[in-house]
Amino acid sequence: MKREILRARTVSVGVSILWFHLCLSVFICGAVGLLLASPAAAKEKADLLVTGGTVVTMDAQRRVIEGGAVAVVGDSIAAVGTSADLEARYEGANTIDAHGAIVMPGLINGHAHAAMSLFRGIADDLSLDDWLHKYIFPAEARNVTEDFVAWGTRLGILEMLRSGVTTYADMYYFEDAVARVTKEAGMRGVLGETIIDFPAPDNKSVPQALEYTQKFLDHWKGDALIVAAVAPHSMYTCSEKTLQDAAALARRNDAPILIHIAEAPFELEQSRDKYGLTPVAYLARAGVLGPDVVGAHCIWVDHADIDTLAHFGVGCIHNPSSNMKTAAGVMPVVEMLAAGEAIGLATDGAASNNDLDLFEEMDLAAKLQKIARMDSRALPAEQVVAMATVTGARALHLEKQIGSLEAGKKADLILVDTSAPHATPMYNVYSQLVYALKASDVKTVVIGGKIVMQDRQMLTLNEKEILAKARDYKKQIAASLVNPAAN
Amino acid sequence: MKREILRARTVSVGVSILWFHLCLSVFICGAVGLLLASPAAAKEKADLLVTGGTVVTMDAQRRVIEGGAVAVVGDSIAAVGTSADLEARYEGANTIDAHGAIVMPGLINGHAHAAMSLFRGIADDLSLDDWLHKYIFPAEARNVTEDFVAWGTRLGILEMLRSGVTTYADMYYFEDAVARVTKEAGMRGVLGETIIDFPAPDNKSVPQALEYTQKFLDHWKGDALIVAAVAPHSMYTCSEKTLQDAAALARRNDAPILIHIAEAPFELEQSRDKYGLTPVAYLARAGVLGPDVVGAHCIWVDHADIDTLAHFGVGCIHNPSSNMKTAAGVMPVVEMLAAGEAIGLATDGAASNNDLDLFEEMDLAAKLQKIARMDSRALPAEQVVAMATVTGARALHLEKQIGSLEAGKKADLILVDTSAPHATPMYNVYSQLVYALKASDVKTVVIGGKIVMQDRQMLTLNEKEILAKARDYKKQIAASLVNPAAN
Repeated sequence: MKREILRARTVSVGVSILWFHLCLSVFICGAVGLLLASPAAAKEKADLLVTGGTVVTMDAQRRVIEGGAVAVVGDSIAAVGTSADLEARYEGANTIDAHGAIVMPGLINGHAHAAMSLFRGIADDLSLDDWLHKYIFPAEARNVTEDFVAWGTRLGILEMLRSGVTTYADMYYFEDAVARVTKEAGMRGVLGETIIDFPAPDNKSVPQALEYTQKFLDHWKGDALIVAAVAPHSMYTCSEKTLQDAAALARRNDAPILIHIAEAPFELEQSRDKYGLTPVAYLARAGVLGPDVVGAHCIWVDHADIDTLAHFGVGCIHNPSSNMKTAAGVMPVVEMLAAGEAIGLATDGAASNNDLDLFEEMDLAAKLQKIARMDSRALPAEQVVAMATVTGARALHLEKQIGSLEAGKKADLILVDTSAPHATPMYNVYSQLVYALKASDVKTVVIGGKIVMQDRQMLTLNEKEILAKARDYKKQIAASLVNPAAN
Repeated sequence: MKREILRARTVSVGVSILWFHLCLSVFICGAVGLLLASPAAAKEKADLLVTGGTVVTMDAQRRVIEGGAVAVVGDSIAAVGTSADLEARYEGANTIDAHGAIVMPGLINGHAHAAMSLFRGIADDLSLDDWLHKYIFPAEARNVTEDFVAWGTRLGILEMLRSGVTTYADMYYFEDAVARVTKEAGMRGVLGETIIDFPAPDNKSVPQALEYTQKFLDHWKGDALIVAAVAPHSMYTCSEKTLQDAAALARRNDAPILIHIAEAPFELEQSRDKYGLTPVAYLARAGVLGPDVVGAHCIWVDHADIDTLAHFGVGCIHNPSSNMKTAAGVMPVVEMLAAGEAIGLATDGAASNNDLDLFEEMDLAAKLQKIARMDSRALPAEQVVAMATVTGARALHLEKQIGSLEAGKKADLILVDTSAPHATPMYNVYSQLVYALKASDVKTVVIGGKIVMQDRQMLTLNEKEILAKARDYKKQIAASLVNPAAN
């Protein structure tokens, strides 16, 4: 009996020990499993997580996600969704709380002369002739240097970033300096060196300009933010040969071509008188047009011209403020969009606007089409927001990289605060963006995943220094106009 | 000898004593004189002294005073001059340092429906018919109460004050509530109770409306800030008798008449079909027009109409944003100014704009005339600033009280900060105000000598509460349109 008891006890102890080990193993395995499978450990890393906003994606479905979020990895968007979803999936190294704000693609300013911000309001309310010949040309001849361009561009960039522009297209002189300060500011740019048939501040001849431009294109090839471009000024300031040489240079280098097209009535008249063709027909015949061309203005275009522009895949840029202020005319935006044209929105230079505010341009674009057509339904708000973002990206031939909040695109996004009195209450987010919200409501700006403005604090620019330099330059410029010998 | 010495000494002592007293007297007199004549004692008292700014007077000489100042006593301007001059003459109980800012007359918004701010963006990009009958009229019928009007008006006033408007003209319902909250906010208003030939949210019949209006006029008679007015809505919503009864009521009470005139093409058509007259000719024949009338829009006017409006001294109010957005037409501002018409500038209501921003209206007014006339010289910046100030005051028949910075006028003035990137550099102050500066640059607002906003802090309004109420009302309004039974 004792042996049996002993055996039984031994078995029992053995079973207990076994049981204990089994339990311990299960516990350890479970704990390790739990550790491995814990939500924290399973989360993907994001460099930046923007959560809690009204995300206006501008994707093909035009999704607007309330309580939405954007996850950024490196310089690109990794995911767009609800905050709940993305917070469960991502661990953000940096986070931005977007409650009370719209999160949307950064605005695209399709045509500017940023450095001309130093000429803001130098002369207004004049005929085009007086404005150009008594003020702009003399002021440029006497003042535009590489230093001028660098500081003027910084001023323009400062204003654009503050108003939510993350990409701009520029046409000016010393464009290598433009590219340098744009890169320093962390902004994206399609920057075209101007080719023109008269001595310019940087290059005194077309061959010189073409040589400068080749070096400029080489310098910036493959840059993450800068797309170097070639900018033959227009058909009325460039011979056919200049236009063709510039286009050939661009195409040898896979660079976009920026050009003014059919901006003013005189251009149409001259073109008809000289060639019996509209400006668009003339540029088509010269071989300039193509899917790499970005045409600013495109106002004086007939039905055939609209078809031609669509046929070649030319991006067309609307500049409502400038076109109204200089009395250039009204771009037939509605017809061009109907023809499948990619239409972008822009400010033009501050000398003819007089600011670089794409919110103002959105408001004006919608209102100008309505009044010009006497149709309050023309160009609804959603289409205008598209022009400033996704359609604008298409106009700059950058639709694969920017223009909407979608996984794989560059992380160019802005937060627009919706709490101001002028934006309260809100019924429709597109209406609010076009007709009520202002540049001053832009809170935070992210370009290529990098925060360049946060809660209206500039992180890549020395605002005080730029403004001081601008005020200094103003004194010099004003003196140079009163007394040409001053500079 | 001793006696002689003694006498001489006595005489000497006597002379010394005399001399001492003489000197003492001169000293005392001098000291008293100095005290009486001291600069401190000689200074006049000012309740408020604004110094160091660029003072844009908008007086007849259009004086712009760099390093200028304004002295305020009570609710009026005592003096305008250089800071050096006014600081020597005045001792300010309160002072505002205006360095880096423009000091100018408060802006005058000549036509608004402030309470409709609660309908901001409720429906856009529609035909006038759909907009009115599917959205605005149902939304008004289901939501407009005295409480709605009070909160909506507070929201509108908040936005207007923040953008530098110190006087506004309003046409809506429950106008007594509008007057009450305007007065509470310390704002100046020309506030017209709407008379209309259909049941309104406040008064169900015209006799009821006329009775309400009489009480309203009595209530506000002689108020320092509120000018109560009569607002027959328009010739297409009021019979001739209603128009005449409303005008008679206004004239018995020395109250201004606010009315929509020739706003839309359909109004011109109806008027021609029904009466064989233009709207202006019809209103003239009905005896409605006079030097107490403020007409909003005045778009569809021919040369004879312009002469008629000038003949009667009617103030005419231009609403560029609203006119563009609703595709109403373009007011012939240039011709009307040439005819001596007093033209004011305005926002209209936020339901058709969608904000109350007179800086935007200045920019648009200039640009709209230029593009409509294809003339970049049309309506220069200085004229536009006048429309928003001194000419606008004339349009509201208040030119003796407001519109310019001149001794004797009410102390309605604003400080506009000029240091923002979008306003740097500055060549011309009028250009900058019209084409570059923004509502968000308005720093400080003074109305009738009282500071209502200082460094963008509201002093007379509870901003947080107003915005919360607006968001609450939005929920109710949106629900009432989806489900008419909701309210």
